[in-house]
Amino acid sequence: MTRTVYVAGTGITAFGKFATASLGSLGREAGAAALADAGIQGRDIDVVTCGCARSGTLHGRESGVGQYLGWELGIEGVPVYNEKAFCASGAMALNVAHLAIGSGRHDVALVLGVEKMSSRGGRGRPLTSDGMVLEGEVGFTPPAYYAMAARRHMAVYGTTREQIAAVAVKNRRAAVDNPKAQYRAPITLDDVLDSKPIVAPLNLLDCCPTGDGAAAVVLVSEAGAERLGIEPEIEVAASVVGSGYYRKQDRDMTTFSLDRSTAAKAYEQAQVAPSDIDVAEVHDSFSVAEILHYEDLGLCEPGMGGKLVQAGETALGGRIPVNTGGGLLNRGHPLGATGVAQIVELADQLRGRSGTRQVTGARTALAHISGGFQDGDFATSGVTVLARRHGTAA
Amino acid sequence: MTRTVYVAGTGITAFGKFATASLGSLGREAGAAALADAGIQGRDIDVVTCGCARSGTLHGRESGVGQYLGWELGIEGVPVYNEKAFCASGAMALNVAHLAIGSGRHDVALVLGVEKMSSRGGRGRPLTSDGMVLEGEVGFTPPAYYAMAARRHMAVYGTTREQIAAVAVKNRRAAVDNPKAQYRAPITLDDVLDSKPIVAPLNLLDCCPTGDGAAAVVLVSEAGAERLGIEPEIEVAASVVGSGYYRKQDRDMTTFSLDRSTAAKAYEQAQVAPSDIDVAEVHDSFSVAEILHYEDLGLCEPGMGGKLVQAGETALGGRIPVNTGGGLLNRGHPLGATGVAQIVELADQLRGRSGTRQVTGARTALAHISGGFQDGDFATSGVTVLARRHGTAA
Repeated sequence: MTRTVYVAGTGITAFGKFATASLGSLGREAGAAALADAGIQGRDIDVVTCGCARSGTLHGRESGVGQYLGWELGIEGVPVYNEKAFCASGAMALNVAHLAIGSGRHDVALVLGVEKMSSRGGRGRPLTSDGMVLEGEVGFTPPAYYAMAARRHMAVYGTTREQIAAVAVKNRRAAVDNPKAQYRAPITLDDVLDSKPIVAPLNLLDCCPTGDGAAAVVLVSEAGAERLGIEPEIEVAASVVGSGYYRKQDRDMTTFSLDRSTAAKAYEQAQVAPSDIDVAEVHDSFSVAEILHYEDLGLCEPGMGGKLVQAGETALGGRIPVNTGGGLLNRGHPLGATGVAQIVELADQLRGRSGTRQVTGARTALAHISGGFQDGDFATSGVTVLARRHGTAA
Repeated sequence: MTRTVYVAGTGITAFGKFATASLGSLGREAGAAALADAGIQGRDIDVVTCGCARSGTLHGRESGVGQYLGWELGIEGVPVYNEKAFCASGAMALNVAHLAIGSGRHDVALVLGVEKMSSRGGRGRPLTSDGMVLEGEVGFTPPAYYAMAARRHMAVYGTTREQIAAVAVKNRRAAVDNPKAQYRAPITLDDVLDSKPIVAPLNLLDCCPTGDGAAAVVLVSEAGAERLGIEPEIEVAASVVGSGYYRKQDRDMTTFSLDRSTAAKAYEQAQVAPSDIDVAEVHDSFSVAEILHYEDLGLCEPGMGGKLVQAGETALGGRIPVNTGGGLLNRGHPLGATGVAQIVELADQLRGRSGTRQVTGARTALAHISGGFQDGDFATSGVTVLARRHGTAA
């Protein structure tokens, strides 16, 4: 990779359940917002990438979502890459665009992430990861897996139920200040502990919702920025993805080796350490997941994740604020949109645009997403590092 | 792009309708064959790309096919990109791997293309491009579109029904010599003209089948080849993809502007002219498509495609042999597999491994595939140029 890649603009829709929205209306809104933020037009784009995990099984359009959105945005005749990797689809789309720009092949990329889940067919069936039909039918769905991981983390490290619930409270507190978030009413620890049981020890408020939404990011090379007459402030210092099989037999359920190895590569690519991270987006499909991933990402020592959140260190004003946009739990988790929404949140933070949820002085940010059912399926981990290289801190 | 990309190995399964085959068994067979041909192991691979257009709508696994196949082949912890672009999915997979290697990010890629269509659900419905439900229900399926294009080409240029049928006969003749092809019994012009009418003027033998199959290619950088101790002979001189909307209102149905622009970029990237091409794979989902695409690719002047095939210039022994493996019409067209199968055929030709269907002295080869419903949908065109840069010609 020979060239630096910059974030030139971002856009995002409200996340939620919108009966009249479509993949087209959502993607168009986010894409147009990102183009406007960058101060450019569709015709300036020379490559499109699109993360959308379930357009085929939910809407009968397995290929072509990126092509369709590109056309809606006035983009014609350029390469369009559709990326599908479960919850990590958006991170894959960002990664392909990073490769396309960093390689010198292209100069201005539009990265789209979009999903429309509220109108999915087969509503009665559990939403397992693709292909996990048998496991889903016998009850081994993602909440069941994370509940087992929670119990194991509690047994091995003494993590408490209250520490796990504290993730949900913290992330809801952040979402209160995010007008795009799906759930914004404040909640207490008791609300989480008293909410409807899903799989013990996890309750309803420990689980992310399904929903609809889209996010978009414009990436440029220096040559692209010069051509467009723009001065982007945020560098994509690392974009690393990895895939693998989470083997039941060689792990203890309290850590994900693929996330650890992917994060290590990202820190190396960005030439930063976990202690350099000022603000992070961390995969919190379930409250306990955020605790496990603090540890996988090196934000604390193994086993210390529960104490980290309980001490307020990952809340706004803490040492390393995590999920300042509300996380998957509260901003919502329209699969393909999430990985791109994380970049929108962090680029806003580094540009000092986050209003009441701004992390003061943020210069280096990390996004982490984990896609695919974590045990028994084939998963993808994505870690991105953004850095404000020039100018003053936010 | 700073580095040259080479084909280090190829593999392909038989194409056909195989009741007991799965995406897993097909992809594993092709992938293992490509690794063996390159003389390497799964652990040597540092990036995987996988083209598979219909795993979600046909088999309930929209994400994760590449991850699954990688795991089956002993590949772990590396980036895996799943590409979906209708019939061009395999060309997209090749393009992403070309980007990953050419950029310097990775050194050894496994490109997989796989599809299992014979067991698709909803067998009674026409197989339109994704999302074209309404058009399909009123009969505007791909055969209908190509039939209209055939009538238009006949009206504008005087192309004859016999010239169109000659494509099917020529490509079947090639498939007779390809043990991997789906249809291998020789046919005559009368067989085509007397076969079951589908949409006038096209008959059954003018249309490609659905089927199952997989193909795989190993790509390497020079650094990768050195590390593995191998000496690849075939350079990927160009890999260009483009997407766009085929507008009804601004075209005459006898040409595809997206294919023309994509081919022009590929010729420029490879620094070759149409007259330099010794052997080509050209998208022939329907017999008439090959004639239209001769013209789009510059293999003859506009309107001359019918005469080109009738004169035998695109048959083995002619000036520019096309579809020496049988084409989509006869090798078969398992969507995601086709774009990779084209590369397997051409790399074999350039290495002098094509036996009775060998094009003598072939040094430069072109593959073309066109994905997405051509009119009213959002399509992708892929053009690849391979070149034997070193050593003696085949």
